[in-house]
Amino acid sequence: MTTATTTVSVLSTEDLLKNWQGHRALTRRTIEAFPEDDLFNFSVGEMRPFAAMAVEFIGMAVPIVDGVATGKWIKYGDGPKPVSKSEILALWDQKTKELDAKFPAIPPHRFAEVDTAFGQWTMPGIAMIQYAIENEIHHRGQGYVYLRALGIEPPHFWER
Amino acid sequence: MTTATTTVSVLSTEDLLKNWQGHRALTRRTIEAFPEDDLFNFSVGEMRPFAAMAVEFIGMAVPIVDGVATGKWIKYGDGPKPVSKSEILALWDQKTKELDAKFPAIPPHRFAEVDTAFGQWTMPGIAMIQYAIENEIHHRGQGYVYLRALGIEPPHFWER
Repeated sequence: MTTATTTVSVLSTEDLLKNWQGHRALTRRTIEAFPEDDLFNFSVGEMRPFAAMAVEFIGMAVPIVDGVATGKWIKYGDGPKPVSKSEILALWDQKTKELDAKFPAIPPHRFAEVDTAFGQWTMPGIAMIQYAIENEIHHRGQGYVYLRALGIEPPHFWER
Repeated sequence: MTTATTTVSVLSTEDLLKNWQGHRALTRRTIEAFPEDDLFNFSVGEMRPFAAMAVEFIGMAVPIVDGVATGKWIKYGDGPKPVSKSEILALWDQKTKELDAKFPAIPPHRFAEVDTAFGQWTMPGIAMIQYAIENEIHHRGQGYVYLRALGIEPPHFWER
């Protein structure tokens, strides 16, 4: 380990992308576990169905990496919405490839640099990326409850 | 930013502890949001009530930091179980202080060092700590569904 200023570095960009893609692989299996109709229509407590959450993850991932990389924050979520499980999974796989290509090109200094994402959230680049990952973990956990309520065993949380 | 071997450091130990304690503060508010009886008895899809999840977080946090710090993994979860919301919150606050005291004393090289936690999980120290945080985010998201199913507004996810 090397020492950065007064603190100790604990995570590399490679580790961070690997962690994120591991979570995204688990989220993909969670999407797959839903029956087609329930993916779009089932929920608990008047919350959103899991398809809406998955589309939110798809809408955030690449725009956040683009914003951290370039300082240009292009509002996400304005594209056409996928209307089937296979369309969601195809978009998911496309974003997986884009993340793998774009993430390593983020200029190193941008992780620590404070910026305002999408004109709303002011924080360092690393915090924006952590937020995207943690938001996905949070809502995927909710998808697990939907699956359990449907009598379906969710994928193992610890498998990435 | 400094360069560690071939990768770029993106997170300091201070950032990591701050992120964890921010999540723990949100989880504390989630515990508080439950009515006493529902905290221990309500769930969806035959899952565990949120009290059991909160006790799991309490049981993991300090033993993982101790294990990463020392290489000694003392099995967690064998202590007396709290039986009221106030007991859970008191234990929570005690662990918050212990984490603040113990975390900065983790020897820097232990974050990257691979170890076998609790005789079961082999991974670098940083990955064990990330697992504890992510497990908490995952299950807290489930607690949010319980609250919504009870007609209770959960705390804002983005407030830490």
